Amino acid sequence: MDNEIVKYLSKYIVVSPEMEEAIVESQFVKCFAKDTILLKEGELSNHCYFIINGCIRSYYLKNGEDKTTEFYTEEQAVTPTVYGQNIPSEYYLECIEDTIAGVGNPELEAEMNAKFPQLLTLNLALAEAIMAKNIACFAEFKMSSPEERYVNLLKNRPDLLQRAPLHQIASYLGIKPQSLSRIRKRIVK
Amino acid sequence: MDNEIVKYLSKYIVVSPEMEEAIVESQFVKCFAKDTILLKEGELSNHCYFIINGCIRSYYLKNGEDKTTEFYTEEQAVTPTVYGQNIPSEYYLECIEDTIAGVGNPELEAEMNAKFPQLLTLNLALAEAIMAKNIACFAEFKMSSPEERYVNLLKNRPDLLQRAPLHQIASYLGIKPQSLSRIRKRIVK
Repeated sequence: MDNEIVKYLSKYIVVSPEMEEAIVESQFVKCFAKDTILLKEGELSNHCYFIINGCIRSYYLKNGEDKTTEFYTEEQAVTPTVYGQNIPSEYYLECIEDTIAGVGNPELEAEMNAKFPQLLTLNLALAEAIMAKNIACFAEFKMSSPEERYVNLLKNRPDLLQRAPLHQIASYLGIKPQSLSRIRKRIVK
Repeated sequence: MDNEIVKYLSKYIVVSPEMEEAIVESQFVKCFAKDTILLKEGELSNHCYFIINGCIRSYYLKNGEDKTTEFYTEEQAVTPTVYGQNIPSEYYLECIEDTIAGVGNPELEAEMNAKFPQLLTLNLALAEAIMAKNIACFAEFKMSSPEERYVNLLKNRPDLLQRAPLHQIASYLGIKPQSLSRIRKRIVK
């Protein structure tokens, strides 16, 4: 599975044999069983993830209610908002499928960036790309009606409907489960 | 005003006299009058901004309606989602106040990063910090009722209520202007 990481990096930079060896040696690819909680509310976070295969969900417990805020799938990075800081997380990260992911930590990152400076440039480019995508998704969400949000999901991430239960999809779309059922019925018609 | 940039950078890294000189020489601080449109839908974007003083609003024209998606103020970076790419913007950027900002472009960035590698590390750290803030804001937005969103605004960015008209604030909060009026009346009571 280290090969998957090398394959991904090779889309953007030349991966030298030394870098490939360092990736394999770091043993940073791990497997997590479905239902594994990677981060809990109140915990510090010293790990970030790059999903090779599987799905990680972020959710908050707000007044006892489970509120899904994001689903991360293949080739997406999951960097907790408090990653590497001495601040407790406000939310949870859970594998909703068996998940294979590269697992980073601040020390490993610093070591790899120092050894392979081109990784620093790549990380900056990827961070900027993720940032741009987040901004666009947030804007789209803000401007869309609940029905438009569901239609966008059907268009952009139809796989999620097979991977996650509907009550999680509903809160991810910022709507009540009953409203989602109504929207789905209307669309089928 | 170059001093403001140096002061900001000095919070994070040691700014050498050489770096300070390069910043002044690049003449990258510019002034924009209120109502200046920095980017239009359909245009390519080769400029990013770091606001020293003022306020920049991003908005979409969706079915002829003006939808505000973000307000950027002092010490915030504005990087268009299509910055440095050959893709037309889907939205507008407008100064809603006289604005003083550092203006970057891909060539200047590459040149400065090559000359002062510590800027690359800093840029990565700042991009990650912005990303974390975006994720947290999006999650909060998703989980909040319209009234909660308004209360959060009062708590976190009360200055915006003095700086932007209410119809822009309403669409920024993803609610109708009439609903915002009702919420405001309820809260005053």
